[in-house]
Order: sequence, then structure tokens, then C-alpha cells
Amino acid sequence: MEANTRDRLVVAARDLFLAKGYNATGINEIVRTAGVHPGSLYHYFPTKEDLLVAVLEWYRDHLYDGLLQPVWERIDDPVERVFGLLDGYRQLLEMTNFDLGCPIGNLALELANSHPKARALMQVNFVQWTGAIRECLDAAADRLPEGIDTDSLATHVLTVMEGAVMLARTQRSFEPFDRAILHLRDYFDRLLADGTTWSAPVGCRPLSHLRGDE
Amino acid sequence: MEANTRDRLVVAARDLFLAKGYNATGINEIVRTAGVHPGSLYHYFPTKEDLLVAVLEWYRDHLYDGLLQPVWERIDDPVERVFGLLDGYRQLLEMTNFDLGCPIGNLALELANSHPKARALMQVNFVQWTGAIRECLDAAADRLPEGIDTDSLATHVLTVMEGAVMLARTQRSFEPFDRAILHLRDYFDRLLADGTTWSAPVGCRPLSHLRGDE
Repeated sequence: MEANTRDRLVVAARDLFLAKGYNATGINEIVRTAGVHPGSLYHYFPTKEDLLVAVLEWYRDHLYDGLLQPVWERIDDPVERVFGLLDGYRQLLEMTNFDLGCPIGNLALELANSHPKARALMQVNFVQWTGAIRECLDAAADRLPEGIDTDSLATHVLTVMEGAVMLARTQRSFEPFDRAILHLRDYFDRLLADGTTWSAPVGCRPLSHLRGDE
Repeated sequence: MEANTRDRLVVAARDLFLAKGYNATGINEIVRTAGVHPGSLYHYFPTKEDLLVAVLEWYRDHLYDGLLQPVWERIDDPVERVFGLLDGYRQLLEMTNFDLGCPIGNLALELANSHPKARALMQVNFVQWTGAIRECLDAAADRLPEGIDTDSLATHVLTVMEGAVMLARTQRSFEPFDRAILHLRDYFDRLLADGTTWSAPVGCRPLSHLRGDE
């Protein structure tokens, strides 16, 4: 089934922005990759930033089916869902030989000062992502220390993921990613051990799989 | 005192890459900002990547006097030095109204796939930074749980900093930064409480200063 012209442009731009960044991606390259007539780009997206906004809307609209659902279907335990989601980024790094990381994080640093409309949409994506993590943490609230701010903890999880992906891509190695996640896991283990009802995570996979470097 | 032409080019490129990113910075803009003759750019730096490499070498050579020394002079306690360094990034965000973050982190995501020579130098900068953190952690080793991998923990600190700066710049708010650091502090407090000799951090500032949103 052939996608329509607008969708083809969004998908081509999405993939090129992810692989090369926004500024390094040329308009001609997007048109060529999408296999559409150059005039149609300007019809649907008068400016390059309009296309960027559409790409960020695409990510916003596909968070659940593209990212969360595959993990949620595989894992039931809410704490393990958090680490399962993080492991998904590790798999992306592995599959792409460190070429691709978090699409929003990539664009966030490149465009933080120059594209306010896009920046607001990146923020929406981050809020959605941490919202999904917070739901997991809320579902595990009886195992966490009483009164813990799950919204705040969800933001912490996002910062570790973004930093871990950045360092792994720079080093072209899983080492920094695995180290960061190992300490996040250690932090969670300590929170869970300090929890009100439970004293250990349920369904916790052995930590050794987080230590295996490429 | 007027810096020499090469230094002026490096400083101009450093500041422009930090504020706008690498790809969005034009060669003409660098020459204009440096106030040098256009020909001198190509004399010292035949390619834009050569200039990028010089900028990364500048950061490598100024880690101590530009970043660490001001914090080390102010704070003696090794654990508090770690959080003092993180607070320096918060100050940078504050002073620049979220326009400037970690210069290496910025470039790392933008250029991870395209500039291998620069990427290797970014990695050198990250290794230097985590090395300084590891020295702090080693100096506090008798307060941390026995056998903790301080090298690995230092990498974790870097991931939290990079993620926290990214989210703060995207949201134009200290909220995500402060949340991430608050949980890193909580993790450290739990490690220190579990330590072999000490049971609490020394010289710990009250956490409330980390919670004050802008």
C-alpha cells in the first residue's frame, strides 16, 4: 500500500532528521527519499520547520503503538516495564550500530535555541514519555517508599536514558549505557528495598545482562 | 591583550557552535565574529572539521582551569564537589536563560554519525570529565559501599547531567534539571547511608535549594 504524498514526506524527513540531524538534512534529499515531486513539499510544508513540526507530531501520535505497546505486551510488572522500555533504546543502538538514538533528544539539543514551535512539541513528547513512566511507577507505588514523587522520578528516568544514549553513541559502545542503567537499577533496588509493602522487585531479571559489553 | 588569529578563530567557533550548533554555524559568521581576514581561516583550518577539532581540543585543555578549579577551590568535600560541579551547569543555564548547556553534549548528538575524528575527541572530553568525578568518588571511597565501581558511578553522574541539561533547555525550566539532580542526590544519600565508615554525607547542603524552581 502506497502512503500518500504528505505521509511519505513526513516519514522521509523523520528518518533523515534522526540519522543526520535537522540542519544537515537537505530539502532535496527529503524530496528524493520520499520519491515525490519537489513542488509537493512546498504545497504541504511551506517551510522546513513546518515539516519538522509534522515529524514531531508523528512521534507524539505514535508513542504508544511504536514504543510502549511492544514493551507493555511483553512485560507485566510495572517496574520491569520501565527497564524494558530503556532496553528498547539499547536494542535500537545495537540494531543501528549506534547510528540512531532517541529522535527527540537528538533534535532537542540541536534546535533548543532556534525553533520555539518545534521545541514546544519536543517538550510535549518528553511529557508524554515521562507520563507513561509515571503510570508504571504509580502502579508500583505500594512497593516504593511512601510519599515518593513518581512524576519527579519519571523525569529522572528520562534524563538517565537521554544521557546514556548520548554517551553510548559518542563512545560507540554499550559501556556507558549499561553503567548508567545499572546504577539506575541499583537506585530502584534501594527504593524498592525501602518500600512500604514489598522489599524486592518482582520479576527482576539478573543484572548480569546489563553488564555484557558488545 | 589581543589573542592571536588562530586563538580568535577557535574562540569564535567555540562560542558559535555552543550557541547554534555545528551545522547551523556558517564559516562567514565565524570569520566575522573573530574579526579576522577570511583567508586566515583557511590558512589555519583547511576544513570546518579542522576547526571543530581545535574547539574540542580547547575544551579538553581547559577542563581543569575553566570548569573544575572554580568548584574545587570553593568546596573541599569530595562528594559535594560532584554536586557543586553539577550546580555549575545549573548556573550556566541560569546565566544564559537556557541558551547554553554542555558544549560537548550538544555536539555529540549532532555529529555522532558524521564526524569520526571529532567524535573521538568528544569521547576524550567525556573520559576526562568522568575521570575528575571518579577522583572525587575515590576520595570518598571509605564512605561509599564497599567494592562500588567508582568509574561506573562517575559515568552515571555524567549521564544524569547530560540528560538534565537537555530537558531543562527543552522545557526552558529548571524543573527537570532539579528533579534529576534531586534523585541523584537521593541515590548518593542511600549509597552513603550504606557506606562502610560513614553513615551520612559530610557538608551536605540542604536539599531544598535543589527544589526551588525559577
